Amino acid sequence: MKLDPTKMKDWEIAAECEKHMKTVYQLADELGLTKEELLPYGHYVAKLDYKLILERLKDRPNGKYIDVTAITPTPLGEGKSTTSIGLIEGLGKRGKKVIGALRQPSGGPTMNIKGSAAGGGLAQIIPLDKFSLGLTGDINAVMNAHNLALVALTARMQHEANYDDEILAKKNLRRLNIDPKRVELGWVIDFCAQALRHIVIGLGGKMDGYPMESKFWIAVASEVMAILAVSRDLKDFRERIGRIVVAFDKYGNPITTEDLEVAGAMCAWMVDAINPNMIQTLEGQPVLIHAGPFANIAIGQSSIIADYVGLKLADYHVTESGFAADIGFEKFWNLKCRFSGLVPNCVVIVATIRALKCHGGAPIPRPGQPMPKEYLEEHVDWVEKGCANLLHHIETVKKSGSNPVVCINAFYTDTKAEIDAVRRICEEAGARVAVSEHWLKGGEGALELADAVVDACEEPVNFRFLYDLDMPLKDRIERIAKEVYGADGVTYSPEAEKKIQIIDADPELRKLGTCMVKTHLSLSHDPNLKGVPKGWVLPVRDILIYRGAGFVVPVAGTISLMPGTASDPAYRRIDVDVETGKVTGLF
Amino acid sequence: MKLDPTKMKDWEIAAECEKHMKTVYQLADELGLTKEELLPYGHYVAKLDYKLILERLKDRPNGKYIDVTAITPTPLGEGKSTTSIGLIEGLGKRGKKVIGALRQPSGGPTMNIKGSAAGGGLAQIIPLDKFSLGLTGDINAVMNAHNLALVALTARMQHEANYDDEILAKKNLRRLNIDPKRVELGWVIDFCAQALRHIVIGLGGKMDGYPMESKFWIAVASEVMAILAVSRDLKDFRERIGRIVVAFDKYGNPITTEDLEVAGAMCAWMVDAINPNMIQTLEGQPVLIHAGPFANIAIGQSSIIADYVGLKLADYHVTESGFAADIGFEKFWNLKCRFSGLVPNCVVIVATIRALKCHGGAPIPRPGQPMPKEYLEEHVDWVEKGCANLLHHIETVKKSGSNPVVCINAFYTDTKAEIDAVRRICEEAGARVAVSEHWLKGGEGALELADAVVDACEEPVNFRFLYDLDMPLKDRIERIAKEVYGADGVTYSPEAEKKIQIIDADPELRKLGTCMVKTHLSLSHDPNLKGVPKGWVLPVRDILIYRGAGFVVPVAGTISLMPGTASDPAYRRIDVDVETGKVTGLF
Repeated sequence: MKLDPTKMKDWEIAAECEKHMKTVYQLADELGLTKEELLPYGHYVAKLDYKLILERLKDRPNGKYIDVTAITPTPLGEGKSTTSIGLIEGLGKRGKKVIGALRQPSGGPTMNIKGSAAGGGLAQIIPLDKFSLGLTGDINAVMNAHNLALVALTARMQHEANYDDEILAKKNLRRLNIDPKRVELGWVIDFCAQALRHIVIGLGGKMDGYPMESKFWIAVASEVMAILAVSRDLKDFRERIGRIVVAFDKYGNPITTEDLEVAGAMCAWMVDAINPNMIQTLEGQPVLIHAGPFANIAIGQSSIIADYVGLKLADYHVTESGFAADIGFEKFWNLKCRFSGLVPNCVVIVATIRALKCHGGAPIPRPGQPMPKEYLEEHVDWVEKGCANLLHHIETVKKSGSNPVVCINAFYTDTKAEIDAVRRICEEAGARVAVSEHWLKGGEGALELADAVVDACEEPVNFRFLYDLDMPLKDRIERIAKEVYGADGVTYSPEAEKKIQIIDADPELRKLGTCMVKTHLSLSHDPNLKGVPKGWVLPVRDILIYRGAGFVVPVAGTISLMPGTASDPAYRRIDVDVETGKVTGLF
Repeated sequence: MKLDPTKMKDWEIAAECEKHMKTVYQLADELGLTKEELLPYGHYVAKLDYKLILERLKDRPNGKYIDVTAITPTPLGEGKSTTSIGLIEGLGKRGKKVIGALRQPSGGPTMNIKGSAAGGGLAQIIPLDKFSLGLTGDINAVMNAHNLALVALTARMQHEANYDDEILAKKNLRRLNIDPKRVELGWVIDFCAQALRHIVIGLGGKMDGYPMESKFWIAVASEVMAILAVSRDLKDFRERIGRIVVAFDKYGNPITTEDLEVAGAMCAWMVDAINPNMIQTLEGQPVLIHAGPFANIAIGQSSIIADYVGLKLADYHVTESGFAADIGFEKFWNLKCRFSGLVPNCVVIVATIRALKCHGGAPIPRPGQPMPKEYLEEHVDWVEKGCANLLHHIETVKKSGSNPVVCINAFYTDTKAEIDAVRRICEEAGARVAVSEHWLKGGEGALELADAVVDACEEPVNFRFLYDLDMPLKDRIERIAKEVYGADGVTYSPEAEKKIQIIDADPELRKLGTCMVKTHLSLSHDPNLKGVPKGWVLPVRDILIYRGAGFVVPVAGTISLMPGTASDPAYRRIDVDVETGKVTGLF
């Protein structure tokens, strides 16, 4: 059957390819895995025992490490996941031994309006239903581990309120004096449940908890998920879990999961989740799916463990950084690579003619609204002007010492003159450029991109961090704002100033990484400013502290950790074919 | 290594046996499964594709169907799960082709004080950590499916409050006018989170939900779990999910998951969960684990699908009914067998000398308190007197037309004279009796029980229900109360009377099954009345209606759908060995 993405829906293409996809046993054979290393979850999904694999292959040199990032996108997105998958397919088509690592989608967007981010057209990962609906249960494990901490916290508060010191001592419990006004964590659920954003709990009698305000977050915003993404192994994971600050006591001291004696049990729920999951592209290359931290407050990347495994199993390992290069790549560079000790050989920057036009002055396209006509016509001048944004991101990648490759993610409205303009401008700036038609043609359409990446990976890398961990926090933030965002400086709210004092005064907190929060729709903090905004300062409103994950989060702008379900969400159209058991209506 | 339960903890025995347990591939070979029918989840846990198996073996006669129930227990429990597992091991030791089906434990009790119900001594199921910590994720799937209904409900209430009819019509939504005072469902989480029993949600602005009272239940109390237990196949499951009543509108009409357009998506989260899980006993017999409905309000039995599969795969299929025979067996008999169309060949009634003494007048033993000395001494008189309770349950089993086998679950303090007394009394009443030492000796200790069961299974069965579905609800309740509990009659609260009128007037509700709620610690509704209480009436306080699960629940007593976490819960002692990945401290 001819697969034509211009005529078929994504899930129809996925369903067609799923009819003859490889079993995980075939994939494991091709990767040379032992029987013990492959943990099948049904026939088409597996977990890989990271520990056995890394032990067996510890002397094998790593493959080439490729990160895919993007220019500042329009609100429609510019196909970063699709390009990552297309690149994997392209490298596969060239006969390279290739693997990838991507994030697991949250049930929130999958059931709401965004969909499951499995790529699109002929660049997708399958099985789509397993990928979209929880895979092997890692997010559920995060949810259980996280909520167990809240159970321990609220039960402890109730028991301390009901029992005197003598009774507590008999139960071998010391009084923690938790401040109900300073509970840091919300509960989690992996849907967009705005009704649980602001709640009051513990109503009823004295055996029904401690009455106080509380909140729910989407599960992928849990610090447990952030920890899953950045941990190097189970030991590291266990230690980080124990450092999570759940609340503060009435004297301002942090109460951790270890204080609540729940860190070990939280970890018990996560033992299987630490192993990466494996599925495949439409063309049968293996793809690891592992961790899906909420990009708004966490690292927004798939796990370090998946990268360790991928780099041992293949000659080319492709991963992706959430959002644009100023957000996603900056965190990949200064946080993920610092935690992992890995160095990328090549960084792909995905651009579209659409986004370049937008940066050059065309009206901003909006989801659910008709595409402005400017995007259906040739406008070389806007494209050229918009390249300023792309050039800025190329410079950012170069500052890391990595080799940039620009991928023009082709669309049928692109004209030759527009593409030629981008190619010329980028090549003048010293970046490789490739046009890729993976959406329309799969791996066959991504050969130019694959070749450019293979070439770039042969070049020497002079990888260096933007800042050292002994640099004071304000200096780090200023350096990121100026060098990566192009700001003139940074201002701080009194709240942020106070937190910076606390952090700088604490030898443990001072050494944590820096994980910036800012819109990805502009280099600045204002999503309406396109191109390369000039003459602005970054306003830092607050600093969040994630001791377990190992970073502090300077927040420029507002963030919600619980998105809302819209009035026409995806779940209205999702169902099950009761004869075949196949899920219909996913996208 | 010699395994001595008098010297080793249960989890130590489990860990020792796990070192050389069979892989799921070996188990599948022994069962004659095809490669497609086995869905491994790692090396030691699998799901079985029920549909493929039932299609392939549709012409094969069913094996013998054995239900394990118990006399009225003490608050310490009398080892019903342990006996079920011991019986499977004993039949295996006799060379019979045997399989079992048990419930999956909830994370609530596992993390709290009850533990995970994996049996004990040399009658356990393994791997213990997988069994105790969510297995393949079915309970998480229930949680997600259930909570998605609440997301749909609360989002809809918010949108109806914020938008006028014209805007709703544009989004193809009709106004449902949900009554915030008549939301039937709570949210679910699979822990004992008493702080979430009574909550207020939807605080904040108009985009933050609809402000109202709400509640959380333990996940296994979800109607989705009840439906998983009673569904015959995916089609049946899908239809039942769509009939769940989430709330009522302002005119008193039910609002179902179909009305909220969320039933299909709920089912999508459950597609994998409908396949039973397979693990094994310490001695390598396969055991299916499937569904774990909260016995307090639901059927309290493992799934019908698991029984269908087990009966095709083996010559002897052992399952278990939650609580004592008046509760568990009565539901097995009149609900589960009615829904499934299956007929048991033999019913095992587990008794202990301890419980018989208690029914005969010895002080009630309590968890966490020293065992009263009466239980450490010979007291044949109390044992004989206590046999009245056992005889009552034997009669109940006989009323169903099934063949009873009494299993005396032996303990080292039992004396020969005590055991002889029970044997004599039961045999006089026409029941087979076997003494079993499975806890101490595994299958070798359960040979007498296995032989008695094999013999009983050869006898003819004259299975008949206690009531027909065309019998009015009050008559059914009265019949159960009199015939099974030994009550003189039934009284109804005004609330219950009102519900009965509604049910009797509705042709759909009238045909639903009857699922009684009452303490299991007495034949009566008063847990302190031991033996066979006389001269009492059953007070029915309320009737719950579960349209999806397909039964109404007359409630005699109080029930909480959200247990509380105690001050010394199990999670304090649970941790992970970061070198081996093994979970420690489970019980």
